[in-house]
Amino acid sequence: MEIRTLDDLVRFDPEKKQKIAVFDSPHMYYDLYALLPGQLQKPFAFKKADKIIYLLEGTLRVSVAGEQADLQPGQAVRIPAGAVNSLENVSNEPAVALVVVAPHPECAERKKRRKKEAGAG
Amino acid sequence: MEIRTLDDLVRFDPEKKQKIAVFDSPHMYYDLYALLPGQLQKPFAFKKADKIIYLLEGTLRVSVAGEQADLQPGQAVRIPAGAVNSLENVSNEPAVALVVVAPHPECAERKKRRKKEAGAG
Repeated sequence: MEIRTLDDLVRFDPEKKQKIAVFDSPHMYYDLYALLPGQLQKPFAFKKADKIIYLLEGTLRVSVAGEQADLQPGQAVRIPAGAVNSLENVSNEPAVALVVVAPHPECAERKKRRKKEAGAG
Repeated sequence: MEIRTLDDLVRFDPEKKQKIAVFDSPHMYYDLYALLPGQLQKPFAFKKADKIIYLLEGTLRVSVAGEQADLQPGQAVRIPAGAVNSLENVSNEPAVALVVVAPHPECAERKKRRKKEAGAG
């Protein structure tokens, strides 16, 4: 059975935010994000996938479509498909979040490619 | 911004296991399961969706395709599409889990229906 102890997977890197895949699922990303104080994820949007961030440790400043909030452990935020969002650890403690993105962004890419190829053929 | 404090949403019912939607996403179920001692989810499989269970509180006996394990807080298990699975709170404490299912099972249903209608038309 595929069981993971999340604490065992967390790792930090002073160079940049860490994104750690917990499972390899064809249907979603199910990742840990580990950010040291000051680390961030730049503004970004998934066109067709929802992203939900659940904070396990620390404090994370989340920006979604221009709105800003400081997420606390035990809180989750949904970022709808298409919404530009960014993350920043503005605290003095490490931050760890459980991040789900669905559908799997690479699936959408694959589907698009297949459609294109079918159209061209 | 859609922020939820998960603790605020948890509720138990002596009658049966509670399934509490955290967000309304078109792309996935993102739910809390709350089980009192002895409560369970009977064997069941999503044909085309992966299910990932992350345990927040208590102990949960998980069965996946005939294999069994006791999940502890901080652990997650992936149940691949098609695998029959069941859950049971075999401990003396309440159990709370964060459960993600993707793609959204109702979307698959909708797609199938549309395909059928298109085929019939």
